Amino acid sequence: MTNIRGRFNKPADKLAAQYTASLPFDKRLYKQDIAGSIAHARMLAKQGIISAEDARKIVDGLKAIKKEIEQGKFQFKLETEDIHMAIESRLVEVVGEAGRKLHTARSRNDQVALDTRLYTKEAIEDTINGLRELQRALLDVAEANIKVIMPGYTHLQVAQPVLFAHHLLAYFEMLERDIARFNDCLARTDVMPLGSGALAGVTYDIDREFLAKELGFSKVSQNSLDAVADRDFVIEYIAAAAIGMMHISRLAGEIVMWSTAEFGFIEIDDAFATGSSIMPQKKNPDVAELARGKTGRVYGHLTALLTVMKGLPLAYNSDMQEDKEALFDTVDTLLATLGVFAGMIRTLKVKPENMLRAAGRGYILATDLADYLVTQGEAFRTAHEIVGRLVGYAAGKDKTLVELDIKEYQRFSKLFKADVKKITLESATAARNVTGGTAPAQVKRALARARRRV
Amino acid sequence: MTNIRGRFNKPADKLAAQYTASLPFDKRLYKQDIAGSIAHARMLAKQGIISAEDARKIVDGLKAIKKEIEQGKFQFKLETEDIHMAIESRLVEVVGEAGRKLHTARSRNDQVALDTRLYTKEAIEDTINGLRELQRALLDVAEANIKVIMPGYTHLQVAQPVLFAHHLLAYFEMLERDIARFNDCLARTDVMPLGSGALAGVTYDIDREFLAKELGFSKVSQNSLDAVADRDFVIEYIAAAAIGMMHISRLAGEIVMWSTAEFGFIEIDDAFATGSSIMPQKKNPDVAELARGKTGRVYGHLTALLTVMKGLPLAYNSDMQEDKEALFDTVDTLLATLGVFAGMIRTLKVKPENMLRAAGRGYILATDLADYLVTQGEAFRTAHEIVGRLVGYAAGKDKTLVELDIKEYQRFSKLFKADVKKITLESATAARNVTGGTAPAQVKRALARARRRV
Amino acid sequence: MTNIRGRFNKPADKLAAQYTASLPFDKRLYKQDIAGSIAHARMLAKQGIISAEDARKIVDGLKAIKKEIEQGKFQFKLETEDIHMAIESRLVEVVGEAGRKLHTARSRNDQVALDTRLYTKEAIEDTINGLRELQRALLDVAEANIKVIMPGYTHLQVAQPVLFAHHLLAYFEMLERDIARFNDCLARTDVMPLGSGALAGVTYDIDREFLAKELGFSKVSQNSLDAVADRDFVIEYIAAAAIGMMHISRLAGEIVMWSTAEFGFIEIDDAFATGSSIMPQKKNPDVAELARGKTGRVYGHLTALLTVMKGLPLAYNSDMQEDKEALFDTVDTLLATLGVFAGMIRTLKVKPENMLRAAGRGYILATDLADYLVTQGEAFRTAHEIVGRLVGYAAGKDKTLVELDIKEYQRFSKLFKADVKKITLESATAARNVTGGTAPAQVKRALARARRRV
Amino acid sequence: MTNIRGRFNKPADKLAAQYTASLPFDKRLYKQDIAGSIAHARMLAKQGIISAEDARKIVDGLKAIKKEIEQGKFQFKLETEDIHMAIESRLVEVVGEAGRKLHTARSRNDQVALDTRLYTKEAIEDTINGLRELQRALLDVAEANIKVIMPGYTHLQVAQPVLFAHHLLAYFEMLERDIARFNDCLARTDVMPLGSGALAGVTYDIDREFLAKELGFSKVSQNSLDAVADRDFVIEYIAAAAIGMMHISRLAGEIVMWSTAEFGFIEIDDAFATGSSIMPQKKNPDVAELARGKTGRVYGHLTALLTVMKGLPLAYNSDMQEDKEALFDTVDTLLATLGVFAGMIRTLKVKPENMLRAAGRGYILATDLADYLVTQGEAFRTAHEIVGRLVGYAAGKDKTLVELDIKEYQRFSKLFKADVKKITLESATAARNVTGGTAPAQVKRALARARRRV
Repeated sequence: MTNIRGRFNKPADKLAAQYTASLPFDKRLYKQDIAGSIAHARMLAKQGIISAEDARKIVDGLKAIKKEIEQGKFQFKLETEDIHMAIESRLVEVVGEAGRKLHTARSRNDQVALDTRLYTKEAIEDTINGLRELQRALLDVAEANIKVIMPGYTHLQVAQPVLFAHHLLAYFEMLERDIARFNDCLARTDVMPLGSGALAGVTYDIDREFLAKELGFSKVSQNSLDAVADRDFVIEYIAAAAIGMMHISRLAGEIVMWSTAEFGFIEIDDAFATGSSIMPQKKNPDVAELARGKTGRVYGHLTALLTVMKGLPLAYNSDMQEDKEALFDTVDTLLATLGVFAGMIRTLKVKPENMLRAAGRGYILATDLADYLVTQGEAFRTAHEIVGRLVGYAAGKDKTLVELDIKEYQRFSKLFKADVKKITLESATAARNVTGGTAPAQVKRALARARRRV
Repeated sequence: MTNIRGRFNKPADKLAAQYTASLPFDKRLYKQDIAGSIAHARMLAKQGIISAEDARKIVDGLKAIKKEIEQGKFQFKLETEDIHMAIESRLVEVVGEAGRKLHTARSRNDQVALDTRLYTKEAIEDTINGLRELQRALLDVAEANIKVIMPGYTHLQVAQPVLFAHHLLAYFEMLERDIARFNDCLARTDVMPLGSGALAGVTYDIDREFLAKELGFSKVSQNSLDAVADRDFVIEYIAAAAIGMMHISRLAGEIVMWSTAEFGFIEIDDAFATGSSIMPQKKNPDVAELARGKTGRVYGHLTALLTVMKGLPLAYNSDMQEDKEALFDTVDTLLATLGVFAGMIRTLKVKPENMLRAAGRGYILATDLADYLVTQGEAFRTAHEIVGRLVGYAAGKDKTLVELDIKEYQRFSKLFKADVKKITLESATAARNVTGGTAPAQVKRALARARRRV
Repeated sequence: MTNIRGRFNKPADKLAAQYTASLPFDKRLYKQDIAGSIAHARMLAKQGIISAEDARKIVDGLKAIKKEIEQGKFQFKLETEDIHMAIESRLVEVVGEAGRKLHTARSRNDQVALDTRLYTKEAIEDTINGLRELQRALLDVAEANIKVIMPGYTHLQVAQPVLFAHHLLAYFEMLERDIARFNDCLARTDVMPLGSGALAGVTYDIDREFLAKELGFSKVSQNSLDAVADRDFVIEYIAAAAIGMMHISRLAGEIVMWSTAEFGFIEIDDAFATGSSIMPQKKNPDVAELARGKTGRVYGHLTALLTVMKGLPLAYNSDMQEDKEALFDTVDTLLATLGVFAGMIRTLKVKPENMLRAAGRGYILATDLADYLVTQGEAFRTAHEIVGRLVGYAAGKDKTLVELDIKEYQRFSKLFKADVKKITLESATAARNVTGGTAPAQVKRALARARRRV
Repeated sequence: MTNIRGRFNKPADKLAAQYTASLPFDKRLYKQDIAGSIAHARMLAKQGIISAEDARKIVDGLKAIKKEIEQGKFQFKLETEDIHMAIESRLVEVVGEAGRKLHTARSRNDQVALDTRLYTKEAIEDTINGLRELQRALLDVAEANIKVIMPGYTHLQVAQPVLFAHHLLAYFEMLERDIARFNDCLARTDVMPLGSGALAGVTYDIDREFLAKELGFSKVSQNSLDAVADRDFVIEYIAAAAIGMMHISRLAGEIVMWSTAEFGFIEIDDAFATGSSIMPQKKNPDVAELARGKTGRVYGHLTALLTVMKGLPLAYNSDMQEDKEALFDTVDTLLATLGVFAGMIRTLKVKPENMLRAAGRGYILATDLADYLVTQGEAFRTAHEIVGRLVGYAAGKDKTLVELDIKEYQRFSKLFKADVKKITLESATAARNVTGGTAPAQVKRALARARRRV
């Protein structure tokens, strides 16, 4: 912008101007920028730094500009460099001299910190709403399938039977922690930086508390150098998003796996599946795959911003301009993923019979046999060894445990009685009746508690 | 361990055994593992799952083993695979049959989750102490140099004068946020997972609240699948550490830069500097450089663990075993860095005269001139342009602003009066008298507030 | 696209369609896609799989579509999902039935692999040109300043004098390795994947060598599963770009530092500097800072794609769709950075007197004194210690080595003779007369060799 | 080390000494360091810089020290800081004054660059051997199962039948590219840096070509500043390793999935599987999971080193000391993974009948039906749509394509004749008879070619 190049003898090199302009992406902050400027103008007038008349002109002008932007009439010119200058420059066109007073007691450094904080606060609110919506979708499916038993896995090997609802509730818990992390991030984002000026504070008698109140902040920043040099809140948002995407990538991976012909636990609704350009039979879990892939994207933004901030001297440096695209894309990616996942989850077709059949495989009740021996007086470690040998024996005969008769059991321990055959998938799940366990009673309690939270 | 290979026909391949063994690094968790086992044994007895006599033997045995380890008498054998099996195996040697009952109602999956949470809780406490110590060192130096003025920079160009104490307090604020982040992480780490069993909960009538109380946890986990599949708290610790190291890298970079012959703002104490193998004159800011470098290490651990967890199906998978080395090394790195930095900062030799000289360069008072014009009635944007041209004029003459006479000033605006020459570094800092600003009054208040916090 | 949803009963969910569409970014591949399709159609006709007439229609249709796109007349419709379907769909509109034959013996999986390889090959060529241009700029400045001596640094402490041209040539070497890496990447990118079909090869009698020749590839892929599942070449491009940006970040960091008032080694041309919104005197090295910041962006893309590909089963998965935006943005970022840096470097104002003054500081000739003692018969380690004490003595007196008289020298070693005072910055650089050393003779040779290469 | 602290008045702070010492990890470089010092001493004597007698003493002393280290008799003292000083210090003890001459015309900066290059060159050779060994294991299994048909997948949905050998050969190709990348890295690592001194070259008349020859390098470095500031080769090694681990993570993921009860395609040999502490039946694919997890570790090291090097000024900075642990751990991880994978792959039990059964699912021959229609004169896109509807019809009836009768086929296209029922898994694989296709003839050729390469 020419009017901030007062001491220079040359216009900017064209490539350099393009390279340094942030307008192509920071124009997304127009709403925040205008809100901040309106509050700033009001404060300047309240403190007698500009006249009430000038403030009124500025505020009206800014409101008009907001409308221009929202109606697509605003001309974004690359030479105005960034959204702050684009708006200020237009303001001067619209309201004249008064517009030249808006930037009193302010710098782009505290202004951009303000805009980014306002944006991030809204983003956190949207994110929490998106997480809640996905939680609700999980609960809907869990409640509708409360009796469905599936194999629980460790190392992707059949381990112990669990309720499908219990499995879904594990994701509910993960999202619950995500929400808590975003809330914690919100507390650190909710700090009003205006008044920090370029780096050292401003020389005018401003009212920072007034600004905070006008703009909905609960605190003002306590060190001007830090206030303009700090992007912790952006990194923290992205770190929380990275963990959130990691959770979704786990669910996505399971959905892809459960949708295979081999597992066949679920079928994705046609509305959330895609076809193939060449294979007419294909029904692909595209949404889940893409979500899993987009996890990398958010991890990448986290790496990017941590790298950007490493080793930077105080206070503001232009490297920090890189924060915006990473932040915007993270927010967009996470919100889109949460939205489309909620829809996909809600419309999943669950196949209880396939889950049940799979739960019958792989000696899934072996732990319960060992626990049975313990109740008969065997030490657990010994019981574990006995059942290990029993399983080895059955596997050698290519038989399931159900197919063995009680005599064969007793070859491994006399403590096995006829009632050992009463251990079933149902009894095994019911037996895990501890807080957080998969017993139907516990899962129902967990569902009720979860429902209250969302 | 042979006794968990009951169903297998072969011993483990030697390379495979080495590859999968976690004992070489998870032996660090012996204290947590034993504490967890003692609480578990007591709970089992309290609930009548094992006898009081067996529990007593187990507890005594575990205490004896702890001593063995701490006295270097414990034999870590790779074939026991991990610390849990190493201790259980030794326990059976020491107390016999009773030892074979310890693993009742427990799995390595909830056990390792417990140990890691206990470790992380302690690590967070140590980390916060380390951050506080570095904060105290910063305050000591800031208080001792309360009157020192240095150039404030943006884009590493001289911008406006600030108090050196104000600059140091910016780092105080960063560390304050770090502490808050670790505290938030603590709340999510402080969850007792025992009772989740392998993945589905256990079949015994255990008392999870008792375990939580014994082990100092405030909550128990609410979903068994999640409890064994969750490493969020590890990632969150490392993410907070990454941001913390980023802050330190900024301070480190400034210390390196301030120590150059060209800046000459500080001198590192001989005790914290290193020499050269070939250049006899060298005094290198090794500690600061290494800390800056170690930032990469912690970023790397964050990338590593996010990658590890991406797309993993529920519940436990061996990939998760990778969490430990990354966590341990992050904790070690951060604690060592905080410790050595506190020492280095406290012993810094500050060179006020060089800072002051540097603050005299680069037309540092230009903003104050613009603000002066504003107080004389000029619009800020116009004032900014006028001073821009004035600076361009002075630079062309290779003069400082002080060297210009009032007539030269007035060539650019008639609003300049003789009193413009009264603007000095001191008046400029004093004028920034807003909350968070660099005015001595504000900095003193900030110091007092900070001192109360540490 | 409706015609690949043949087996589905529902249209795609709107959010899902948006989420999975790649058209908004892969439309950049239109040129490659059309080139690939033209070659494919010609091959199909040559092999008698489609008629010559159909091929002619297809080729003409595709050329017309290319024109439409380049004239901005093409309507990109989100429901066509990706650029391949967008073009095929339009082709059918334009040429009718013949267009429905283009996708014979082809899948989107090998098609997108082809397009991405064609794009990457061009990108590598552009990148190497960009690197060469920056090398030329470095050589221009080095040659123009061949006599300028500056302090060489290790640990950012003044170490030994070097020629400024020698310093710039270090960057020349880095860029030379970058070029080599991109060339190596090119060899692995230059592989023609068409004919791999969806994953297993195609059932038609196609001529892959003909396709390779038409499209300028030197090899055809050797395994169809690998050919559609491989994105190594994209990751390798980004990894090479990450190292390249790392090099530029080092140069950028030096430019920022050299531009400080404290160093004052260079001044960035006004055309490549930016001003401040509040501080009228500021001249900021924005371009260099941004380039340093954008290093993080490219690192982030590398993290992203490595994460995306981790653990993916064969063959194609939609996660891989994430490769494109990361690749495009890396190419754009690197090319823009190289372009703007070449301009900024060429217009740098070098300040030899400031460099020389700085080289006089910090006992920079101490190594030469130690070497002097070695030539007088002292063992190097002893000589190093002697000079270490001499420097300690001088520093204690706050004197430079030049200010000491010969008697003071001799207090530390009798081997010091009067001629020790003949050691100067000039003699010290001239003495480093080994291949790769900073002696003017060596630097001139290096410059000549470099100039021949570019 | 006291003798390089000549100018300092204080010993190092204890924490600082620990923090900066690299000895605990760089002692691994003792072999390289001694080899480099022997060559250096010989060169110094050859050039008359030290006497032949001194050189002999040095060489003998170094050989003796090597033995001490290898026999575990060497005392590593933390105060010697690094392996270079530890050895030089011991050398002086062993051979006296001559030892004090070894460091003539050398700096730790070029010395550590040399040692790291020597280490990396060996590591690359070992890595390529490890990759070749894994390739051989893949070929062994592929050859032994040359007739086995499995379902080929895209999006993890059954897509088209492929030979299991073809699938394994896809991994062969990936490893082939890995080898090429390591070879390219070798060319850039194979550069001899000695003679660069601390940063500017040395003042002695040394013979760098002689050194290169003695130490087995094909080139000498061309710029001294670059030579000591460059760690590209380390990053490039780790980047190649990251891509290699990514490939292994894909294979690992498939092994885990194929080992599930649901897929049942393979069984891991008992020697490469692990059990559970609680579930007696478990047989876990621990090795594959850990390899997948360790991918994160190597990605992390890549992030770490790219971060470390970002923005560093020339020439050497202590940040770069962080290169070693990352490099060592990457090499260790990759070599161990390759070794254990070769063993695991070779002992896999393949279950052809399960693969075949799975290949019968999911309308896997649909593409072949579309291709059939094309050979009957239908346009491919139309054929694709017809078969899409046919599949939809069959799925609605819950029938396979085989279960439909020819009349049902003809309802969708009259072009279907009786011979359409001759399309089988075998005919479908045989039909993909293009270079890189899955036809048995092609796979045999590919196997033969691969076998010649390893």
